[in-house]
Amino acid sequence: MTTQFRGVIPPVVTPLTADGEVDKVSFARSLNRMIDAGVDGLFTLGSSGEVAFSTDARRREIIQTVMEIVDGRVPVFVGCIDTETNRVIEHAKEAKELGASAIVATCPFYALGGLPEIERHFRLIHEAVPELPLFAYDIPVCVHTKLPGGLLVKLGQEGVLAGVKDSSNDDVAFRFLVDDNAKAGHPLTLLTGQEVVVDGAYMAGADGSVPGLANVEATGYVRMWKATEAGDWATVKKEQDWLAALMRIVTVPQGVAGFGSGVGAFKTAMALLGVFDTNQMPNPVLPLKGENVKRIAAVLEECGMTLARTPEEVSASTEA
Amino acid sequence: MTTQFRGVIPPVVTPLTADGEVDKVSFARSLNRMIDAGVDGLFTLGSSGEVAFSTDARRREIIQTVMEIVDGRVPVFVGCIDTETNRVIEHAKEAKELGASAIVATCPFYALGGLPEIERHFRLIHEAVPELPLFAYDIPVCVHTKLPGGLLVKLGQEGVLAGVKDSSNDDVAFRFLVDDNAKAGHPLTLLTGQEVVVDGAYMAGADGSVPGLANVEATGYVRMWKATEAGDWATVKKEQDWLAALMRIVTVPQGVAGFGSGVGAFKTAMALLGVFDTNQMPNPVLPLKGENVKRIAAVLEECGMTLARTPEEVSASTEA
Amino acid sequence: MTTQFRGVIPPVVTPLTADGEVDKVSFARSLNRMIDAGVDGLFTLGSSGEVAFSTDARRREIIQTVMEIVDGRVPVFVGCIDTETNRVIEHAKEAKELGASAIVATCPFYALGGLPEIERHFRLIHEAVPELPLFAYDIPVCVHTKLPGGLLVKLGQEGVLAGVKDSSNDDVAFRFLVDDNAKAGHPLTLLTGQEVVVDGAYMAGADGSVPGLANVEATGYVRMWKATEAGDWATVKKEQDWLAALMRIVTVPQGVAGFGSGVGAFKTAMALLGVFDTNQMPNPVLPLKGENVKRIAAVLEECGMTLARTPEEVSASTEA
Amino acid sequence: MTTQFRGVIPPVVTPLTADGEVDKVSFARSLNRMIDAGVDGLFTLGSSGEVAFSTDARRREIIQTVMEIVDGRVPVFVGCIDTETNRVIEHAKEAKELGASAIVATCPFYALGGLPEIERHFRLIHEAVPELPLFAYDIPVCVHTKLPGGLLVKLGQEGVLAGVKDSSNDDVAFRFLVDDNAKAGHPLTLLTGQEVVVDGAYMAGADGSVPGLANVEATGYVRMWKATEAGDWATVKKEQDWLAALMRIVTVPQGVAGFGSGVGAFKTAMALLGVFDTNQMPNPVLPLKGENVKRIAAVLEECGMTLARTPEEVSASTEA
Repeated sequence: MTTQFRGVIPPVVTPLTADGEVDKVSFARSLNRMIDAGVDGLFTLGSSGEVAFSTDARRREIIQTVMEIVDGRVPVFVGCIDTETNRVIEHAKEAKELGASAIVATCPFYALGGLPEIERHFRLIHEAVPELPLFAYDIPVCVHTKLPGGLLVKLGQEGVLAGVKDSSNDDVAFRFLVDDNAKAGHPLTLLTGQEVVVDGAYMAGADGSVPGLANVEATGYVRMWKATEAGDWATVKKEQDWLAALMRIVTVPQGVAGFGSGVGAFKTAMALLGVFDTNQMPNPVLPLKGENVKRIAAVLEECGMTLARTPEEVSASTEA
Repeated sequence: MTTQFRGVIPPVVTPLTADGEVDKVSFARSLNRMIDAGVDGLFTLGSSGEVAFSTDARRREIIQTVMEIVDGRVPVFVGCIDTETNRVIEHAKEAKELGASAIVATCPFYALGGLPEIERHFRLIHEAVPELPLFAYDIPVCVHTKLPGGLLVKLGQEGVLAGVKDSSNDDVAFRFLVDDNAKAGHPLTLLTGQEVVVDGAYMAGADGSVPGLANVEATGYVRMWKATEAGDWATVKKEQDWLAALMRIVTVPQGVAGFGSGVGAFKTAMALLGVFDTNQMPNPVLPLKGENVKRIAAVLEECGMTLARTPEEVSASTEA
Repeated sequence: MTTQFRGVIPPVVTPLTADGEVDKVSFARSLNRMIDAGVDGLFTLGSSGEVAFSTDARRREIIQTVMEIVDGRVPVFVGCIDTETNRVIEHAKEAKELGASAIVATCPFYALGGLPEIERHFRLIHEAVPELPLFAYDIPVCVHTKLPGGLLVKLGQEGVLAGVKDSSNDDVAFRFLVDDNAKAGHPLTLLTGQEVVVDGAYMAGADGSVPGLANVEATGYVRMWKATEAGDWATVKKEQDWLAALMRIVTVPQGVAGFGSGVGAFKTAMALLGVFDTNQMPNPVLPLKGENVKRIAAVLEECGMTLARTPEEVSASTEA
Repeated sequence: MTTQFRGVIPPVVTPLTADGEVDKVSFARSLNRMIDAGVDGLFTLGSSGEVAFSTDARRREIIQTVMEIVDGRVPVFVGCIDTETNRVIEHAKEAKELGASAIVATCPFYALGGLPEIERHFRLIHEAVPELPLFAYDIPVCVHTKLPGGLLVKLGQEGVLAGVKDSSNDDVAFRFLVDDNAKAGHPLTLLTGQEVVVDGAYMAGADGSVPGLANVEATGYVRMWKATEAGDWATVKKEQDWLAALMRIVTVPQGVAGFGSGVGAFKTAMALLGVFDTNQMPNPVLPLKGENVKRIAAVLEECGMTLARTPEEVSASTEA
């Protein structure tokens, strides 16, 4: 049974300066804050870590920055996200050289294919970087394929996959995956990528979570995981209720959709809390401004959080 | 706050004789078994009640049969499922005449439209049958539209909708719907249509569930709901774990998909348990046979259930 | 080789009075106008004939009205559109009694299924009404399944299907279907349901077309088909260019989508041309008004058509 | 009016050696053969040029190889396909350095976004490489977004876009795009990415085509374009009929889907014709073998083409 990685492993949001560079000071503030909160690992270059927006040089800079800041205090997962196998393998080899604890890869996207290509894709990645645990990243909203549970468990039993980061929002499939994995001897570490239905995933038997919202507020997720381990479901529910209320920062922005409202809201909240210096977004996405920043500030205050900066200051933070 | 309907309200599976007629004897056995188990209501002519497969005359026969058997012991919800408003209103008026406690309607399907048509659709249905509580049936897998939470709560506040039967398998959206409904004063009764992630929906604050699997085994769902009401989450988890294992009857059939493996498995299990005389399916779907029946029997036995008939007997039950 | 039906077979748009009844006077004006223009048949209760919006009584009234008006001058296809087999068969039997020349059915929708159910669905319909040619209606935008060409040709060779009404907007698949049908001895009559790419379908070898726009202007489609038969492709192109410009009536409405802007624009244009008395739409869709009517009038005039009524008159036509 | 690029511009298929390296000898044979056939340009690193499968180093090697072989005889379009703006800009700058005549970019994919991000994406690419004509690549089957015609024409009028490579298989939208572009003064060069419905696109007014099948047989596409320019539609139809029959090489393979059967069939046909030494495919896709190669050979022979090698030789061509 895999017990190497368990618990709360937030997908790291990447802070940018107003002119779009990696903001290492803010980055250190954020990562240290999560580690101090007691997270069990960090996942850099996930979807919310703007992996798809970052050039290869930028990806390298992000990994290196994270590695330096973390300095071995917790395991670091690295997202190796690209269209097809050979491109992913390049990222995986680089992640290994830079000290990743584990790598995370989606199935192929862009080109059309089928299950045989998906299976061979994961096998080839594992063959190329056998030293590192390989997590399959199930995120159909981005890659437009749902990974079948049967294939995942089979690849787990054969040692190709070490785990799954499930961002499918298909909780029925996740529930069956947990059960099939248990029947197979628990070869896979199963992490849910949700923020507001983590309680259900824990009840189903998840081994941990990868909540983007933990960048804004990690302590609640740490308490929820500890309560899960203790079987204290009333506390799990209480923490999840509060975190779900906080997650509304991503639903209040108007006139913007997808990454711009999701990660845009995380960055804006972190800027309001004084963790990030700006809420700058990567091209072609624009940072949230004006009323949208105020809406996010209102949610934070309703949830009892203390703002370090005004909405106006955050709106101005991305100006030249 | 709506408190009229809460708890476990199974969507009723319709038993057929070998030659495709409604099997009233089996029907009485099944409904009485669920009522004896303590369900809080019954929902007839839902998706798993073969509403889409039934002619209008057949729908009438099913409603009448259910009403006679139930005889006021629990409330009866009636599905009024059809492509567009005027057709739904006809079904709704008939449901009212036949004694329905509440009606359930999806948004329009087949023709293309937008949110204004969906909103007007529910308003017109409510205007046509104002005496009956109207539940919106959110089932994008069938109608290819996800009902937005904001619209649902608005229609709840205005008294158009009394509740929602959520079969969207979008647990994030359901979680936010529960929260928005609570903030609005709980105008809507929110029922989850899931079977294996009911625990999470209850933790999120659902008012009840509509699990098809309760046709096979209702007592577990009743115990899970009572444990929820008592805040006994350990029991909720235990019951859900067992019911999730039992639900594997729908994933073991091979060579068949959709309604044929889902409701087909329910009917087959009920035939194996002696509740239904046959596992006959409506045109153009064929009943499960041979190895698929054996696979379902094996799941039932693994879950500790006692078979009343052999797989061979069930496979033969639909022969002329 | 099937030669029974060829050429231009418009899907009939159904005129309504301001209070939502079938407007038989306008209906006669429209059908006579199309027959006088030289169409080769008429298709009633297609998607644009508001089949999905019409109750069974309304469907019967529409068929009877069309039959009386047409009075044997051209063949009449009748759409038998419903969710599953037994419901479709009821419609098919009624169409037969009312004198349909052929029936048109989609694959099942709403309930989930697979290819075996689709194949059995068409077989059961044909067995129930063997006297009438059965056309498969391939309209994935409504039923969310694309009919595979191989299945269609097989059912054609076995005498189950007489033809296909292709509204898939998948011209590559249609091209291959035409070729496979030719190789199989042309068992199927293949009609394209397009309006603006009919020229390409004719070049590919279609046996005719079912253009909704022919309700507004049939003569161009008749000329295009005759030019096709004569191999006069320059004329085909000229007619298609003009008809494509006219079709912009469906793209100019703002703030409305789907059936409301598509059939809504057809009805509005016909009201502007004096063919329909109103542009009333079936519940829950609202008729086009104000600026949208003016935009449609402008397209008609740009295409050289003479308006019989002002936009204001048409906007007022649906007032009580 | 843009007249810089017109006619037949095949998307170049990339030959690989058995061990997966770029096969420059086969590459020269193929490109020279297409140029000799009279193509008006070449498009390298399109979807069928395995751009998604190629590392950055491999992409560079492919561009350089194509540039050396073509040596200025025809314009060379270069695909700059990647997830988001900054990654695409890197590819675009490299394409410029390596001598591209024009660049081709899709809208963003992987991360979720909306129209504002898509518009800004193309603007930023154009700003970064203003010297090169920028073509929008509309390929929803790969990127899961359909580019709206209105946005494309607007960006054309503003000089951001020089043209569109339409692989949407939405011929209705393409027809309207052609018309809107004409009304706007023809700012965009509109190329269809189809193989078997090019005749219809030409009748609609396309400025040319980008047919993958031209790698197998370019002369037919050149003749079809010349006939289009001459208004000789009977010849257009004749050539398209023959090419559509030849295109069946992509539909005959069994047990493989997507890129593996599509580009896999092109490579296999080219190996059978002696143009490519092998039909090797990029990871994780496997080359076609055995019966699938025989099926492709049969199609080629039915279309009157002479095989240079046996199916067995081609099947063996990828063995170590």
